Amino acid sequence: MEIVIGTKAWSTWSLRPWLALKRTGVAFTETLVELRKAEATTASILPHSPSGLVPALKDGDLTVWDSLAICEYLAERFPAARLWPEDPATRAVARSVTAEMHSGFMNLRRDCPMDLALRTTAELSPEVAKDVRRIAQIWSEQLARSGGPFLFGAWSIADAFYTPVATRFRSYGVDLAAHGASAEAQAYRDALLATPEFLDWEAAA
Amino acid sequence: MEIVIGTKAWSTWSLRPWLALKRTGVAFTETLVELRKAEATTASILPHSPSGLVPALKDGDLTVWDSLAICEYLAERFPAARLWPEDPATRAVARSVTAEMHSGFMNLRRDCPMDLALRTTAELSPEVAKDVRRIAQIWSEQLARSGGPFLFGAWSIADAFYTPVATRFRSYGVDLAAHGASAEAQAYRDALLATPEFLDWEAAA
Repeated sequence: MEIVIGTKAWSTWSLRPWLALKRTGVAFTETLVELRKAEATTASILPHSPSGLVPALKDGDLTVWDSLAICEYLAERFPAARLWPEDPATRAVARSVTAEMHSGFMNLRRDCPMDLALRTTAELSPEVAKDVRRIAQIWSEQLARSGGPFLFGAWSIADAFYTPVATRFRSYGVDLAAHGASAEAQAYRDALLATPEFLDWEAAA
Repeated sequence: MEIVIGTKAWSTWSLRPWLALKRTGVAFTETLVELRKAEATTASILPHSPSGLVPALKDGDLTVWDSLAICEYLAERFPAARLWPEDPATRAVARSVTAEMHSGFMNLRRDCPMDLALRTTAELSPEVAKDVRRIAQIWSEQLARSGGPFLFGAWSIADAFYTPVATRFRSYGVDLAAHGASAEAQAYRDALLATPEFLDWEAAA
């Protein structure tokens, strides 16, 4: 199994399936593509990924691309890793919050790009503040329902998708309480940044 | 089962899971929310969908939101409808092209919004042309592999996700051949617009 990923300090799309892959316990190799090199970046990705985008997962002859499709593939291929919640209704909600992150929160993603080394205090625009409030609401609601420590109790793909968000909140000094987050949601941000898998990624970045 | 959807002429996000829901053959009710009414739209969606966005699916006490999460839920709940390809590797590729649509092609989506009644000829910007070329490539490759008539042979969620794109190509007079599409990919555009389920949606729009 091989995963093709982008620069670890910046690539939120790569971090998500990499965390899921780590959780499966399977042996894998990493191929790193240096991002933000314009044409050279595209040229180095295309042999691996038909979309020209990282990440991509190779399993024998099969190439799976897109962070969410890779996570779904891993959940099917490694059922013992329980990457999605086992209860069908809980799994449907987990997929809802994951898909909402996959296609949304554009303002936060544009104005507050992931940069693991960065520490600053940003004035949030009204549009970014709206994204932060919605994320604080998702976290608070799901943690109240599940009891934590992760969104649906045990760690799942949903937590992989919100880990890059947790790094953004840390990098840009976002005060979650001021955006409606419960105490549990604030602790959850720190829990995402303290998993052994994330610390491993961060150390390599 | 109840699906909450937006204005049928415009809401690409609603059309996708609605097509999948139709394919299951289950009885369902539709709740229509009029889009583009600013605050009034949000106010009418929020009681149904925690994200404030359509679509949402209600099944008893459960609410599932986001077009992709709804499709995944329907695929699990109605296995006989075979909403995803049965072969695991083919399913992984189907999820890859679906997820690529779910999070991408922003330029096409911004410049060529779905409007079922519209017929025009648009000059495409280089960014939109790039999106069109990538879609033509996906369609041509997968149809060559599967033999059609749909992307992975039988109709699947991937085809639901590309149906709004087919309406855009029709509305904006996009010449697919000029963007690298095979003859099969051009016929596929027409096949998407000729399914009984799409014609039903269009007639109601």
